Amino acid sequence: MTLMMKAKQVADEVYAAIRLRVEELRRLGVVPRIATILVEGDPASAFYAQAKQKVAEKLDISFELHTFAKDVSQQEILRLIAQLNKDPQVHGIMLELPLPKHLSAATIESSISPRKDVDGVTPQNKLATMTGEVGLYPATPQACIQLLKYYGYGLEGKNVTLVGRGQTVGLPLFHLLQRENATVTVCHSRTPDLAAHLRHAEIAFVAVGRPQMIVKEMVHPDLVVIDAGINETDNGKIVGDVAVDVSEAVAAISPVPGGVGTLTTAVLYQNLLKALEIQSQGQEVR
Amino acid sequence: MTLMMKAKQVADEVYAAIRLRVEELRRLGVVPRIATILVEGDPASAFYAQAKQKVAEKLDISFELHTFAKDVSQQEILRLIAQLNKDPQVHGIMLELPLPKHLSAATIESSISPRKDVDGVTPQNKLATMTGEVGLYPATPQACIQLLKYYGYGLEGKNVTLVGRGQTVGLPLFHLLQRENATVTVCHSRTPDLAAHLRHAEIAFVAVGRPQMIVKEMVHPDLVVIDAGINETDNGKIVGDVAVDVSEAVAAISPVPGGVGTLTTAVLYQNLLKALEIQSQGQEVR
Repeated sequence: MTLMMKAKQVADEVYAAIRLRVEELRRLGVVPRIATILVEGDPASAFYAQAKQKVAEKLDISFELHTFAKDVSQQEILRLIAQLNKDPQVHGIMLELPLPKHLSAATIESSISPRKDVDGVTPQNKLATMTGEVGLYPATPQACIQLLKYYGYGLEGKNVTLVGRGQTVGLPLFHLLQRENATVTVCHSRTPDLAAHLRHAEIAFVAVGRPQMIVKEMVHPDLVVIDAGINETDNGKIVGDVAVDVSEAVAAISPVPGGVGTLTTAVLYQNLLKALEIQSQGQEVR
Repeated sequence: MTLMMKAKQVADEVYAAIRLRVEELRRLGVVPRIATILVEGDPASAFYAQAKQKVAEKLDISFELHTFAKDVSQQEILRLIAQLNKDPQVHGIMLELPLPKHLSAATIESSISPRKDVDGVTPQNKLATMTGEVGLYPATPQACIQLLKYYGYGLEGKNVTLVGRGQTVGLPLFHLLQRENATVTVCHSRTPDLAAHLRHAEIAFVAVGRPQMIVKEMVHPDLVVIDAGINETDNGKIVGDVAVDVSEAVAAISPVPGGVGTLTTAVLYQNLLKALEIQSQGQEVR
């Protein structure tokens, strides 16, 4: 029987821990607060922002949503971020992607204070993710590892094949995995024989952003698979990067939906608490 | 017959190209100038600094050596670097390592202007090495790849095993290799079965800093090996990370000495020319 590594239970545990900490902080007079920046035009981002808002309410975390019209100038967004960076009441800043074409995500992300950058998108936090220094690491890669560990799998000394090398998930995940002392092979679109690399793997992480890229013929019965893909099909269904029937051919797999994505929001709020800690200790994130 | 991938010839070609460019720059009234900072106390660093100075003279590059006594304060070094950063006549800044214990290499390195950081040690250039943005990448990883390519080996689509994950060579080399579209497996001290990963490899890079760690029994006759190790034995001999007799059991190998190390100094001066270009274009290295 294949183990389905659903995230709901672990997400609930993470939320319970966060709620306790938020209560504690509120008793100390600190109200954790996150600011989300949304530029109109992409229905999915609007949906995600709302979903995060609901979670914040459940966690008793203060949530402010800054919505800009589609034709907002970059200057205007940078001005808001400068304000949020300075505001001691705001502990986390999130920017919803994608942005309209006239805006540079890189420039806007770089303007966020690294100490409030709960999604790990600033250059300083990307570097910290690579070196292992104190910082706020991206949420999805962390969620991948937490989900795996929740189901009792370790990474130390394991042969791990990572499919995908994107700046958002693949590369930061590589760095986290190798610091867990896994031996990581990074595969990508130019890897001629992906199946061979999955054959040698004990654990596979897939983060390519292409629906059902990994098929049954590529895997083996002892493989543990974490699917970080979230793809929308033409008929509006959410599917992973791994074909559904792969679950019949491996030892364990994280479902989509209900897997990594479910845990990612929880990790985002874990990061908010970490951001609070960094800010209260006056720690510098380079 | 094993191909010995000696670096002298490629280094000479690189030097010839640099010399031409230096002549050209001098005709335009620009004298390429590099500043090296040496803190006394480590005979090897003093030796390396001198070796670089000799090369600079050969290349008609202006070289200034700043030597500090063993007990210099960090403040004093930072003051010099601030001066060198501002000085438009100085195009490259190098810090010789190791430093005495009371000095922080990380702090001193971070103070170098990223635009003059010919050894790719600043946070900005480490990040650029990871993302592929414009910047000055560390010399040794670049030398590894240039040496391989000089002997006609490509990396696109190749299975590469990288042994070593240090911040100076291993990790930046990983990033350069994966951007060459190699499928890279990163092995390290906690990899249980290194031999298995070398068996699957077409090309191996070794950068662990431990003498003769890779032995004959681990390799196969089709393997191409680049040895980035430079270790001094008790009797003062320089040896690589790969045992000498491995050369009998592989298709091609870079010797130590006379391999990667020989090319690294040449790449450092390539970086100086790139630094000049970045400075003249006013390009920003984030």
